[in-house]
Amino acid sequence: MTSHALFQVPHLLTASNEPLRELEKRILEHQVKIEAWLRQQWRMMPPPLYSSVDLRNASFKLTPIDTNLFSAGFNNLNADFMPLAIQAAQAEFEHIMPGCLRILIIPENHTRNLLYFESLATLQDILQKAGFSVRIGSLQEALVAEQEINLPSGKTLILAPVQRIGNRIGVKDFDACFILLNNDLSSGVPEILNDIEQPIFPPPALGWSTRLKSNHFHHYNAVASEFAKLINIDPWLINPMYRQCDHVNFLKREGEECLIAHADELLKAIQAKYQEYGITQKPFLVIKADAGTYGMGVMSIYSADELRQLNRKRRTHMSTAKGNRPITQVLIQEGVYTVETWQGAVAEPVVYMIGRYVVGGFYRLHAERSSSENLNSPGMQFAPLAFATNCNSPEKCAEPDHCTNRFYAYGVIARLALVAAAREQHEVKNK
Amino acid sequence: MTSHALFQVPHLLTASNEPLRELEKRILEHQVKIEAWLRQQWRMMPPPLYSSVDLRNASFKLTPIDTNLFSAGFNNLNADFMPLAIQAAQAEFEHIMPGCLRILIIPENHTRNLLYFESLATLQDILQKAGFSVRIGSLQEALVAEQEINLPSGKTLILAPVQRIGNRIGVKDFDACFILLNNDLSSGVPEILNDIEQPIFPPPALGWSTRLKSNHFHHYNAVASEFAKLINIDPWLINPMYRQCDHVNFLKREGEECLIAHADELLKAIQAKYQEYGITQKPFLVIKADAGTYGMGVMSIYSADELRQLNRKRRTHMSTAKGNRPITQVLIQEGVYTVETWQGAVAEPVVYMIGRYVVGGFYRLHAERSSSENLNSPGMQFAPLAFATNCNSPEKCAEPDHCTNRFYAYGVIARLALVAAAREQHEVKNK
Repeated sequence: MTSHALFQVPHLLTASNEPLRELEKRILEHQVKIEAWLRQQWRMMPPPLYSSVDLRNASFKLTPIDTNLFSAGFNNLNADFMPLAIQAAQAEFEHIMPGCLRILIIPENHTRNLLYFESLATLQDILQKAGFSVRIGSLQEALVAEQEINLPSGKTLILAPVQRIGNRIGVKDFDACFILLNNDLSSGVPEILNDIEQPIFPPPALGWSTRLKSNHFHHYNAVASEFAKLINIDPWLINPMYRQCDHVNFLKREGEECLIAHADELLKAIQAKYQEYGITQKPFLVIKADAGTYGMGVMSIYSADELRQLNRKRRTHMSTAKGNRPITQVLIQEGVYTVETWQGAVAEPVVYMIGRYVVGGFYRLHAERSSSENLNSPGMQFAPLAFATNCNSPEKCAEPDHCTNRFYAYGVIARLALVAAAREQHEVKNK
Repeated sequence: MTSHALFQVPHLLTASNEPLRELEKRILEHQVKIEAWLRQQWRMMPPPLYSSVDLRNASFKLTPIDTNLFSAGFNNLNADFMPLAIQAAQAEFEHIMPGCLRILIIPENHTRNLLYFESLATLQDILQKAGFSVRIGSLQEALVAEQEINLPSGKTLILAPVQRIGNRIGVKDFDACFILLNNDLSSGVPEILNDIEQPIFPPPALGWSTRLKSNHFHHYNAVASEFAKLINIDPWLINPMYRQCDHVNFLKREGEECLIAHADELLKAIQAKYQEYGITQKPFLVIKADAGTYGMGVMSIYSADELRQLNRKRRTHMSTAKGNRPITQVLIQEGVYTVETWQGAVAEPVVYMIGRYVVGGFYRLHAERSSSENLNSPGMQFAPLAFATNCNSPEKCAEPDHCTNRFYAYGVIARLALVAAAREQHEVKNK
């Protein structure tokens, strides 16, 4: 699917026709208070330079389920909102590095993933239009000269081999004053990035070779409690419960007791909450690699017993993450049903941010998945559906579930995850 | 005309079909350099918090002709770009007053101008959506209690009498931490605003009781030269020549020699430039009150002789500015033809900015005026036509006169006027 294809699908509005929800109402009522609180958070700890947050909307509950600091779906955003992304980039990049003009993007080492290259081209386009000089410096060892890639969108991407001279990196005839990582470093921090003098954002320590989802949700847990207090709601409505197990090996059945005990405990806790709110759905859990990304090493279960009875195929699936890394640390997270559908397909919102600003989002649609499954799968076999409206224009006169208000609520919850990510970033910077 | 009406007119695209122009081409080619230069300007001197710039596009020449620091046409902007205005307000207001939540807007003292109230309501809406608490504090002496105004757009505006307690102003039960002036102070700075401890933006010294257009163009002249050098163009292509006369009284025919001498000189200088560029149109001048606004005290002339032969009606027209102030200082400015038309009406672009960000614009259309006349008349008898696209997304692959590129060029020239306004602001702050 190219970025053109998404304009052929009508915008998703049916999915916004849920019954009026208490949470959205509360968010709307407290909009000024919320924005003031968020501004205060950014004054204390600046947010990552860009990010995307996967949300799940269960109608009674709206939570982030994953926060990506090396976002790769910029091509899926509504082209109508590009001005918003350009403006946000102007504000944030000037803020973080006043006077710097030349940005070097370090991308993933994919060699044939055209969708990824479309995202990279869109990111480059946003930054160029924001008034920066931007080059792509690839870490691929096989790349010895500039490579031009013609994309389905009509754009052209030029990958150039990264060069290191002394403690600075750049590409031929281009000395960058700022390094923007778009490589999640799943396979570790490459030697060439060590001790370079230019600022690198996000910090390499937030790459998946060291970052843990459990640490993100540890911070998110605190953020959700503070926010829930601010607008007087039960934090559970915006917070998925979780537990964490170290020393797991699915193939060797190591760490199974930890998984089972936590799963059992969590399912009971969810059941209690479901009862409190009169929810009749069946609680479920999502088991994920704690350092994983890219939709690898993820599965859903409805009972702790399932963990005992995993077949060979599922055990293998759960044994390696992106970049062939063995999975040994595991996050067990409360599953959140998604109630949003579009033409029969299950839809999961993804919100994109540049710095503190929500710049758009899209729905992951997956016709072959159920409402309790992970929609971010290897190979990105989902159809993206760009948000029809932006996320920063709440309309108090409209119903809370009016699409502009729903998207505003998405933007608020995504920014709560961003506050958690800002705390993670602060932590690694001060180590 | 209400803000709804503008959506009934098709967007102006025909006006963008001018032949490829050298200036737009040069601006596109140097986009990154231009943005970097503008960022540098803002680091030295922050821009006014909001502004609007009237432009004239003569095809061979694109210049600002007026820069308004108390903008009152927010209702004319394309509603699709509101997110851009909201985001810009979030960036700029937090930047200028970190931690402040409550903004008091001081509006004009109009009592029946619904179009003005629509603009005010849109401004309030932008700031509220940006996450601030915003009230309107009127200086009208006749206002003793809150007044609710129902607007044609369906919005409701509440005017409250300004109260002063000690050195702070606010409205009932609302202690503002920031005062946003939307009153151009044509009649002087009212007593109640003297020595208040809250920050006021724009500074009252930039109101029309003290600000002079000639000072703005004095700064603009320098800015245009610096910019012209940056992208290697003749500064005249972006700069209207001007002269200034003090001690003028049109009714008493005082100061006529100054006017005539300058007019004569200017017309010759313009003629020389027209010859240089092979332009066959007739040079003209616009005579304006130096401290004037609101389209009052403005006339066009084609020869210095006309100044000798002014009839009573024109003399009277030129004798008083807004708020019945006598005109004694006069700006004589090179007239710039507007080549843009829409359905037979002459069109003049107006670009809106919040802080450093271009957030939209519209065309003033005036079917009964010629291409050399002032389109901003008392009573605002023009039809506003919102820009179809935003001004921050240049497309290098498209032709320079493609509408997105033309609007980008408008945004650049408007921001040059903003740099001049930033210098004016810096000047009054350091007095």
